Amino acid sequence: MILQGISGPSDVKKLKFSELSLLADEMREEMISAINGNGGHLSSNLGILETTIALYRTFDFPKDKLIFDVGHQCYAHKILSGRREKFQTIRTKGGLSGFPDCAESEYDPFTTGHAGNSIALGLGLCTARDRNNEDYYVVMVVGDGAFVNGLNLEAINASDSKPKRFIVILNDNGMSISKNRNGFYHFISKATIKRSYVKNKNVIKKIFGNSAVTALFRGVRNFFKRVINKSEYFDRFGFKYVGIVDGNDVKKTATILERVKQASDYKAIFLHIKTTKGKGLKNAEEHSDLYHSVGKNLTCGGSGDVSLGSILADLVEKDDKVVAVTAGMKDGTGLTCLEERYPDHLFDVGIAEEYAATFAAGMAKGGLKPVVAVYSTFLQRAYDEIIHDVCLQNLPVVFCVDRAGFVGEDGKTHQGLFDLSYTTHIPNMTVLAPTCRAELKSAVEYAFTLAAPVCIRYSKASVDLPAYDYKDGRWQTLRDGTDITVFAVGGAAARLALEFAEKYGKSVKIVSARVVKPLDEKTLLDTKTPVITVEENALIGGFGSMVATFLANNNPLPIYTLGVKDEFVGHGSVKEQFEDNGFTAENLTVIADRLLKK
Amino acid sequence: MILQGISGPSDVKKLKFSELSLLADEMREEMISAINGNGGHLSSNLGILETTIALYRTFDFPKDKLIFDVGHQCYAHKILSGRREKFQTIRTKGGLSGFPDCAESEYDPFTTGHAGNSIALGLGLCTARDRNNEDYYVVMVVGDGAFVNGLNLEAINASDSKPKRFIVILNDNGMSISKNRNGFYHFISKATIKRSYVKNKNVIKKIFGNSAVTALFRGVRNFFKRVINKSEYFDRFGFKYVGIVDGNDVKKTATILERVKQASDYKAIFLHIKTTKGKGLKNAEEHSDLYHSVGKNLTCGGSGDVSLGSILADLVEKDDKVVAVTAGMKDGTGLTCLEERYPDHLFDVGIAEEYAATFAAGMAKGGLKPVVAVYSTFLQRAYDEIIHDVCLQNLPVVFCVDRAGFVGEDGKTHQGLFDLSYTTHIPNMTVLAPTCRAELKSAVEYAFTLAAPVCIRYSKASVDLPAYDYKDGRWQTLRDGTDITVFAVGGAAARLALEFAEKYGKSVKIVSARVVKPLDEKTLLDTKTPVITVEENALIGGFGSMVATFLANNNPLPIYTLGVKDEFVGHGSVKEQFEDNGFTAENLTVIADRLLKK
Repeated sequence: MILQGISGPSDVKKLKFSELSLLADEMREEMISAINGNGGHLSSNLGILETTIALYRTFDFPKDKLIFDVGHQCYAHKILSGRREKFQTIRTKGGLSGFPDCAESEYDPFTTGHAGNSIALGLGLCTARDRNNEDYYVVMVVGDGAFVNGLNLEAINASDSKPKRFIVILNDNGMSISKNRNGFYHFISKATIKRSYVKNKNVIKKIFGNSAVTALFRGVRNFFKRVINKSEYFDRFGFKYVGIVDGNDVKKTATILERVKQASDYKAIFLHIKTTKGKGLKNAEEHSDLYHSVGKNLTCGGSGDVSLGSILADLVEKDDKVVAVTAGMKDGTGLTCLEERYPDHLFDVGIAEEYAATFAAGMAKGGLKPVVAVYSTFLQRAYDEIIHDVCLQNLPVVFCVDRAGFVGEDGKTHQGLFDLSYTTHIPNMTVLAPTCRAELKSAVEYAFTLAAPVCIRYSKASVDLPAYDYKDGRWQTLRDGTDITVFAVGGAAARLALEFAEKYGKSVKIVSARVVKPLDEKTLLDTKTPVITVEENALIGGFGSMVATFLANNNPLPIYTLGVKDEFVGHGSVKEQFEDNGFTAENLTVIADRLLKK
Repeated sequence: MILQGISGPSDVKKLKFSELSLLADEMREEMISAINGNGGHLSSNLGILETTIALYRTFDFPKDKLIFDVGHQCYAHKILSGRREKFQTIRTKGGLSGFPDCAESEYDPFTTGHAGNSIALGLGLCTARDRNNEDYYVVMVVGDGAFVNGLNLEAINASDSKPKRFIVILNDNGMSISKNRNGFYHFISKATIKRSYVKNKNVIKKIFGNSAVTALFRGVRNFFKRVINKSEYFDRFGFKYVGIVDGNDVKKTATILERVKQASDYKAIFLHIKTTKGKGLKNAEEHSDLYHSVGKNLTCGGSGDVSLGSILADLVEKDDKVVAVTAGMKDGTGLTCLEERYPDHLFDVGIAEEYAATFAAGMAKGGLKPVVAVYSTFLQRAYDEIIHDVCLQNLPVVFCVDRAGFVGEDGKTHQGLFDLSYTTHIPNMTVLAPTCRAELKSAVEYAFTLAAPVCIRYSKASVDLPAYDYKDGRWQTLRDGTDITVFAVGGAAARLALEFAEKYGKSVKIVSARVVKPLDEKTLLDTKTPVITVEENALIGGFGSMVATFLANNNPLPIYTLGVKDEFVGHGSVKEQFEDNGFTAENLTVIADRLLKK
């Protein structure tokens, strides 16, 4: 067992080249075992494994900085950076995060989970480094999907002179870009340029041409020369382009990285590698989309019995104008069955949430009825577009905001705990929170009747509650009572409130506040009892603050607002996150007692 | 006077070619007169004038759709689309908006003011059009600054097949891109490609080669052939590239546009024009940056006596690690004098707010002390980056949020009325609201001592109030009183409250809530009187809702929250916007009377 001997980067450097493939095999087993136990990102981690080993042979982390774009592909990096012994705890409360986390290790320069920020972060680091007269290398690993996110494109375009010791590795696994037939894919594949940088060329020739080449390295050298010659300079954006390299060949990648590192002392490098998503696991290789993120026992897919896709497909059947837009999350948002039934009615724009929102605004203006399906945390990227391109025009775009509330194992970069705060203050916006998937269907139908911007937010978990028709836009009383009233947003909060009401000694009224905005003012004005609000959202700017403000101005009543305190919420199960944030029947009992001054 | 006869597009089409230059001259006078009277965007409107006339000769607006990116360059478009008679009312309450506004005219397909959304909106429109079997043309005019915004880059990259009758006009006035030496500028300038689309080429040859050419048009034709041959196909992103055309030559541009229109029936067109910013006005041509946006009587520049730039330059003098980032708004945010004193300490990243925030995060991680200076409305674009790249990492990035609150004449796309709602709910964020420029200096110094994310929001107007030192992070009592307490955010609100207190018959305490987050809980708990909050921000999710929620949970008191109702606020003077939204001493008297039940 080679892996047993790896307690940090220096152990990787001691290995012979011939041992690297064995190490990769053992790490692959280790990762599959952890993901089988805890769920996690499978395909990408299997794909980037060999390149990660090669990076550890070449660079001196944590002095050198390694930034994974998105960060879901950091598993091998965690194993090699002294976290091997804890690796089986990944994605569990108190265990390792499934994403880079600077609070967890000095090997993670940033805590990440959203796409597109790596090159901007890297440029910022290099700017600081050069001003501080430091000399570390900054390496970014960017998947082809994240590469074309607007923020990365802004960073690539920011200046035509990039810093030295700045290495962007494009991990091209042939998924996002080529499938979407994006313009950049052609750009990268075909870029040639007539101009040559003689000075840098000579320097690089010196490095590559005159280095001592053993018999062992001859094949590698020829390969390298070939790709160098083939691609010439990729300098429009300030890079020397190197590629295409087989990122699943650990020896070749390690050899090339060593030279890339040297060359980067003279010019920023853009290294283009190809890897196979799901490498080494047959199912994951063949269905890497489905195996992108899996549950325990490597189960994949599934968005509950009533998926958004089937809801929308039924609507398309009746109304040809209905179309859906997703930003690289077709499976996660449950739109696969819409694609199966009406492929022309689904636009997957890749990881480009801003474009998704504004493109939908354009379609709405043109007379279509677009539904934009994005996770709560990722829709943050489109906040300005929601204000400026959708709500300011008062266009009928329906946002289906999945993974709202606590998301469990993905942790702090993925929590859907801000969407009520970032949508409710936008004029013209209606915000709905159905309790279950069956009620989601009614919410979508109701949204279309409004012919105006609507956000519908819901969690991944299917909650077993009766579905009520949305037709009147009013709140729904789930249980009547006379001593205290609980206004709950969403299924899990409502179920928690019902559980509390069953046990509590006094008469509790439970209301599903399924239209978060506009508030059901009549219900609030008619309320005579003390009030508790429950929402899976930040307290500041959320539902509770709207209710408290309205009541203070119009119908002063004792109130307690239960929501998420002003902190980022780490990984664990949803159940643990509920408990840690006081979302328990016991805590509601304490709160109610205080309000009723028992 | 030709202009007197122009009541709509059909009148432009009736003119002889020889009359077009005269029309341009008269329109130039008309625009300068209006801007002289009301202030407005000068350089860009003078630059795009001839191209706008050419567009009106070629296309059938409003059936065809014309989208200006940002939209500040829409003045000629407004004059030609039946709004000539109202043109001198531009930017005044009840008059024309300074930006496209779909509520104002059917010639404005969208209400716009932020950069980067035009191509996405256009693609959405075309998608809807093609599904609805309509045949209108969609034309976007994009400045070189807005062109490289991440949202536009996402849209350009969205697909390698662009729709037909889709024409992107890049208005290259040599400002933003070339000055910033962006990668895309090289890309556009030098793009060549070996592959050719034979089918389209033949079609286009047929259109261009065989059309009847009169003697008058011969020069134009030769020019056109030359630019066509020079640039070949610009097809990586699904466009036929045409350029470079002199956009200030109305005849040439009109001739080429006619052919571009025909060609676009076969393939999307990317038309590259060059124009001179400030064309026809000497000062504006020579200093187009300064004359980008001017006040009445064409006055330009000036950010109050104590500009942010001088504050930061003084800090740089003491601490070399301080750097500033702006997103194309060096003059507007008052950073010019920082550039003069310490040019290496200012990064102007162009219109790329997302990149500005994340780049700053990287610099902060690397040990620098970055200040990001952006207008409140534009910082909306970086909402997710503020959460994910700055606050989640708890990095010491200071956001100087200028133009917060009512902005007056720029109107609904530019109001700074959401920033308290989109920043206060983010964990680790501190939000400051100094009353005046002198207090801003203290706020920036205080922000650096926190070594954590800070937003400092302030308006353009300099308010004449005493500046207090921020050192303790507490609120500041501006006037003591015993009957009622007003918590005011920012200088104008504080001044209004003081004015009310002077006149009101009871004893009023006025507190400057200059730390919006975290709330000064001690002051709130110590308060025994009814409370009024005043803020230039949306009521939902703003300061008032934080205070109301805190008091309801901890110290129930009668309260009224004065802020901006749930509507977009149109153009007018700041004074008018104050009055229209109830920010008057009279209204505060009514509110106070009600709270005190007089």
